[in-house]
Amino acid sequence: MKKFLLLALFVTSSITFSQSEDEKQIKAIYDMALTNGKAYDWLNYLSNQIGGRLSGSVQAQQAVEYTRNQLDSLGLDRVWLQPVMVPKWVRGTPEFAYIETKPGLTTNVPICALGGSVATPDVGIKANVIEVKGIEDLEKLGKEKIEGKIVFYNRPMDPTQISTFSAYSGCVDQRYSGAAEAGKFGAAGVIVRSMNLRLDNLPHTGSMSYGDTPVNNRIPAAAISTKGAELLSTTLALNPEIKFYFKQNCKQLEDVQSYNVVGEIRGSTYPNEIMVVGGHLDSWDLGDGSHDDGAGCVQSMDVLRLLWETGYKPQRTLRVVLFMNEENGLRGGNKYAEMARQRNEKHVFALESDAGGFTPRGFSFDCSEENFEQVLSWKKLFEPYLIHMFVKGGGGADIGPLKDDNIVLAGLRPDSQRYFDHHHAENDTFEHVNKRELELGAATMASLVYLMDKYGPVPTPKIKG
Amino acid sequence: MKKFLLLALFVTSSITFSQSEDEKQIKAIYDMALTNGKAYDWLNYLSNQIGGRLSGSVQAQQAVEYTRNQLDSLGLDRVWLQPVMVPKWVRGTPEFAYIETKPGLTTNVPICALGGSVATPDVGIKANVIEVKGIEDLEKLGKEKIEGKIVFYNRPMDPTQISTFSAYSGCVDQRYSGAAEAGKFGAAGVIVRSMNLRLDNLPHTGSMSYGDTPVNNRIPAAAISTKGAELLSTTLALNPEIKFYFKQNCKQLEDVQSYNVVGEIRGSTYPNEIMVVGGHLDSWDLGDGSHDDGAGCVQSMDVLRLLWETGYKPQRTLRVVLFMNEENGLRGGNKYAEMARQRNEKHVFALESDAGGFTPRGFSFDCSEENFEQVLSWKKLFEPYLIHMFVKGGGGADIGPLKDDNIVLAGLRPDSQRYFDHHHAENDTFEHVNKRELELGAATMASLVYLMDKYGPVPTPKIKG
Repeated sequence: MKKFLLLALFVTSSITFSQSEDEKQIKAIYDMALTNGKAYDWLNYLSNQIGGRLSGSVQAQQAVEYTRNQLDSLGLDRVWLQPVMVPKWVRGTPEFAYIETKPGLTTNVPICALGGSVATPDVGIKANVIEVKGIEDLEKLGKEKIEGKIVFYNRPMDPTQISTFSAYSGCVDQRYSGAAEAGKFGAAGVIVRSMNLRLDNLPHTGSMSYGDTPVNNRIPAAAISTKGAELLSTTLALNPEIKFYFKQNCKQLEDVQSYNVVGEIRGSTYPNEIMVVGGHLDSWDLGDGSHDDGAGCVQSMDVLRLLWETGYKPQRTLRVVLFMNEENGLRGGNKYAEMARQRNEKHVFALESDAGGFTPRGFSFDCSEENFEQVLSWKKLFEPYLIHMFVKGGGGADIGPLKDDNIVLAGLRPDSQRYFDHHHAENDTFEHVNKRELELGAATMASLVYLMDKYGPVPTPKIKG
Repeated sequence: MKKFLLLALFVTSSITFSQSEDEKQIKAIYDMALTNGKAYDWLNYLSNQIGGRLSGSVQAQQAVEYTRNQLDSLGLDRVWLQPVMVPKWVRGTPEFAYIETKPGLTTNVPICALGGSVATPDVGIKANVIEVKGIEDLEKLGKEKIEGKIVFYNRPMDPTQISTFSAYSGCVDQRYSGAAEAGKFGAAGVIVRSMNLRLDNLPHTGSMSYGDTPVNNRIPAAAISTKGAELLSTTLALNPEIKFYFKQNCKQLEDVQSYNVVGEIRGSTYPNEIMVVGGHLDSWDLGDGSHDDGAGCVQSMDVLRLLWETGYKPQRTLRVVLFMNEENGLRGGNKYAEMARQRNEKHVFALESDAGGFTPRGFSFDCSEENFEQVLSWKKLFEPYLIHMFVKGGGGADIGPLKDDNIVLAGLRPDSQRYFDHHHAENDTFEHVNKRELELGAATMASLVYLMDKYGPVPTPKIKG
């Protein structure tokens, strides 16, 4: 008996007796997420019962109502809708495109209109193609070689970047500004290689802007699948005189009323200090928006529930915010920050999940050195959950407008290798989200919120200014 | 101009000038893997042209020939086949099972025979069912409650384990020894809940053993899908008198000749010190064995090529070994170690990849403290590639038999969250392997091999004994 007791002491001492309150609370959060998480069920509904939630669409409104109702059912202190006017762009009938190697000899290729693009004329556009590796090539080519042609932006994502988001950053200017820039040289339209590291047949949409281009000078812009881009490039190399045809009838309508969805647990000790956790409720229309950003929404919703269900009552006011219109306007993020300023609300922390529902690897932080040091002091607590990545970087698009000297902004960083295989494409769908990975993300977020609430952000020294 | 130069110095100093030879070599390896890796193409062939490679099957032999030819084409110093006799078990025609709630009222459920199981009688087995949560329950129930019945092992994998391999370890005794143990109590057969954290309709096979059970006392064993297990358990709870029917006609044939495939680059300085990198070429028969362990094979093959192509000539002899029969016998691993001892070969390092082709997270090591300390000193070099996990643990089943006091055994540790969704099931297929994740794994392995070769394992002090 004694022997047994001694052995038991020996075995458990390093586990039980040294387990701190933080370790226990974080373990409770992970256990709850993995055995009784709600994120996956919510995502199933958002994705499979509602679907793609482009700003201004019926589905976006359904998502507002569904998530509001779900938050209501959690028994939070307050749930409300924050009105925001959003742009409404519609894709219209499916786009169509082909490469014409000689009259009558055509090969169809998969394209989709970029979000915000104008339509082609009803009969489509057929023109010669000039391939470039980026906007910087336009100047070198000049109007002479561009006018009347379709500019084909074909700079691929750099596969040697370990973070696929870095590879994305290195390309996305082609999509966002490619049409506005090519229009200045008299291009008839632009075709942009999809932002995808994989070779496949899926065109990936995404936002683009005409900047200050007058309405009459706007040229249509579409994404082509990576395989389509390879085919077009090879065909052009063999014969620069080939033509490209595409047709799309998307259009921009009037702005419509929409909402951010907000739920709140009032802080027990510092109710005027607000912590936000959120994602964006809108998505592109091609898939069902499961990774971008249904995942971030349902994880954020579950953060509040996980804390509550594990018995943790936040000292600070904790809000989940499901932002509307991140994809093509950021109106929700801007509106939330604007109202916070109007109301003199003090936001001390904001955490966004908008990088997919994959296995969480850590966080990036946009904050003072003092706060970053504090975060680093928590690293050990995350190691049992294989969360190792604590880096400086952006928090997230929607929470960006909250930035000031005093706030800690953070972004969940999931594994990024598969993200752009699905991003803004028709295969951003529920079956590509793994339940455990999604739940681990929610638990990781809840654990950071717990620590940030318990220890509080480090106040910024007031020496400056 | 000066200003520009100063700025350039400032920006690049911490990158270029402090970049060590190791950093450069490792970057070259990752770049090569991500831009010009061969692993994915090889896996495509293994999976889609050959398919599942159960020991003793035609496909296993095709895989031996294909990988030997591919290694030959790399221009290694030597490529050979190492003969090994392997067991040959065949599944036969598809298995069939149903739950009979009352005579004539049946619901089909997905099952598959466990590898090594005997067949049922031709007409199948129909019997009452006794559900248990593990082998330890048998003793409590006793022969009286078990005899003539089908024992249903239904302990699920523990979802709160962050490593899904830990959850697997906590369950797999039901599959491996369940039939032998239940047979002792007169059971008619066993049905085992599939080793899968997800609820789905896929039965997962895997090896089982009758131990020293006489041939005539062996009872058939099958896996049931997790949804099937839930249904069976619920049905039993409502009515313990329901019956279960299953039929399978698998059998064990005579051992057949097979091979380990070995390729070698001879060491420039210490040719008698051997380093092994490998995976297992055999797989289960239900899927195409892409994750288990086609991935590990093609990664191991690419390790040699990546080092060579980036200009690194190993000081020690580097072997890729594609082991045969890991799944149901470990004959290849045992034979390789046996021959190494016979020939007095000095193995200093062995690295196995047998945990799927997912994003690599790190390695586990089975080695001396001194060697583990050395490995930890390399951690910083892996951080840019998001490789953080360096832990003590097993190396791998195939390299296990090489274990002695002097060798460093290591196992690649990829992200484990999705692994058991596919493990030993019909959805362990090529489309579930991500090209970049596979390539990152190969590069991570090659980088460790490079460091281990360059610095050499720490010699074990000879004080003992």
